[in-house]
Amino acid sequence: MGLALAALAALPCHGQDAADNSAPAVQALHAHLAPTPAAMLASAPESAWRAIDPDDILYVKLPQGRVVIELAPQFAPRYVANIRKLVRQGFFDGSSIFRVQDNAVVEWGDPSGRKSVGLARRMVAAEFERPARNLPFTALPDPDTYAPQVGFSDGFPAARDPVFGRAWLANCYGMVGAARGNNVDSGGGTALYAVIGGPQRQWDRNTTMVGRVVAGMSLLSTLPRGDGPLGVYLDRHHWVRIESVQIAADLPPAQRTPLEVLRTDTPTFTQYVEALRNRRDPWFKVPAGRVSVCSIPIPVRSKASN
Amino acid sequence: MGLALAALAALPCHGQDAADNSAPAVQALHAHLAPTPAAMLASAPESAWRAIDPDDILYVKLPQGRVVIELAPQFAPRYVANIRKLVRQGFFDGSSIFRVQDNAVVEWGDPSGRKSVGLARRMVAAEFERPARNLPFTALPDPDTYAPQVGFSDGFPAARDPVFGRAWLANCYGMVGAARGNNVDSGGGTALYAVIGGPQRQWDRNTTMVGRVVAGMSLLSTLPRGDGPLGVYLDRHHWVRIESVQIAADLPPAQRTPLEVLRTDTPTFTQYVEALRNRRDPWFKVPAGRVSVCSIPIPVRSKASN
Repeated sequence: MGLALAALAALPCHGQDAADNSAPAVQALHAHLAPTPAAMLASAPESAWRAIDPDDILYVKLPQGRVVIELAPQFAPRYVANIRKLVRQGFFDGSSIFRVQDNAVVEWGDPSGRKSVGLARRMVAAEFERPARNLPFTALPDPDTYAPQVGFSDGFPAARDPVFGRAWLANCYGMVGAARGNNVDSGGGTALYAVIGGPQRQWDRNTTMVGRVVAGMSLLSTLPRGDGPLGVYLDRHHWVRIESVQIAADLPPAQRTPLEVLRTDTPTFTQYVEALRNRRDPWFKVPAGRVSVCSIPIPVRSKASN
Repeated sequence: MGLALAALAALPCHGQDAADNSAPAVQALHAHLAPTPAAMLASAPESAWRAIDPDDILYVKLPQGRVVIELAPQFAPRYVANIRKLVRQGFFDGSSIFRVQDNAVVEWGDPSGRKSVGLARRMVAAEFERPARNLPFTALPDPDTYAPQVGFSDGFPAARDPVFGRAWLANCYGMVGAARGNNVDSGGGTALYAVIGGPQRQWDRNTTMVGRVVAGMSLLSTLPRGDGPLGVYLDRHHWVRIESVQIAADLPPAQRTPLEVLRTDTPTFTQYVEALRNRRDPWFKVPAGRVSVCSIPIPVRSKASN
């Protein structure tokens, strides 16, 4: 038995999409006065969206469905190249998610650090940060707890230090990084993690970030939490099988997930951020006036292929 | 087949509890030089911990187990009093979790706003903030995106405006608030929410916060996400049954969950926060030097009753 959608109007709901509960007339009025985030996106021009290079897309096939990751070679060229090699050798096929830590991360790949890497490398020199120079960066005016400046670069939440001229990716929800041991250069992409809870900004500049989950997050965020230290599943029977990891470019177009991501370097994006910073939806009584870099979901839409 | 714990040493793990992977000798050395958060807690004096008044504890009984909530009457006296009345009338017994929004909230109680409230009230005047005067407050020196000052008050993450002399609770992971409609005074505790993902600080001062989940968070955070707008389960068959909600004081001591919470107004807590701010575990290479109020888990421990 379905809950009638009309009943939603009576729901004592709250929060970021509360405008959806408003009567259409009120929504239209609001969109005219000061657009809500949802209204902003609905009226965004086609040019505000971008496709993703299929060579930068990983498909992680779980029994429950497909998780889609956009890689960030501009931040971690050596790691991304190595991950592509691992993927194309089938390194992750039949591997597992072996760690799920509540309000923190899921981690997958090779937990032993001993599985053969073939023509790829087991360890790659760390890429924790990069020069800020020549890097597109849409800076936020909002103060940040952790970094001198935060914003977005090519669709990824990032931070920047103007004095030292360095930039790095931020450990926000959905961001993907390479696990490592205590040695900074001991990662290489054979084990990867995704942030499934609150931001883990204390890891910024401590791991090589390699991308972001752009679809399928809830397949990861709802996994049972591990019972061991750091959320490791102590019983191997609890490990979640990864059927395969593939690169979109290696699949025929019909088998790809047709996605587009909102560009982060356009007036549309700036307006979208402003709509989040000062919510004008009828539900909000005290607009925050500020917004955190990790509280700005980067919109992704399904785009039917031609 | 169990994964031997010894194998953890080889795990390419990372993150907040990575010290647990170190050899004991290294851990002991580190605890001496600069304690890790885990070492801090292990050596905390008994006086650093506190019991919770059983009249301020809610037990939410789900089919999967018990969720424990500590109420915050110092921030929302009218709402907490009303919620106690609702609970003692059995208002929530047999009710449901009807909304689970990924990286946001779960919401439970009465979605219709029409269920009889008996001797309680359906709507209670908003308690979004309170005077800062006479409120215990352990301020953090770290900058915050949303508020002039953040810190902890009686075990809850909070914010303060010294100029206007106001204080309010922060929508961090695990915090519990009262849902409402567009009218500020339309809540009352008949529907409650808990933050299950990243902080929802844009809701600060927009909802009446009534407490915090102190145990059982993963029972909420792993629930399947709703398929409707705002994460509402469109199909009532997906609603998660709440068998009962009870106040600990109304149960015999043997049926209570014996918990203690780390006090937030002691030197121990300040040292714990500093250990999070500047991680000295061997895994960390660049200590953040700052810490966000929502990135400081307030420790809870099981305390066997005498």
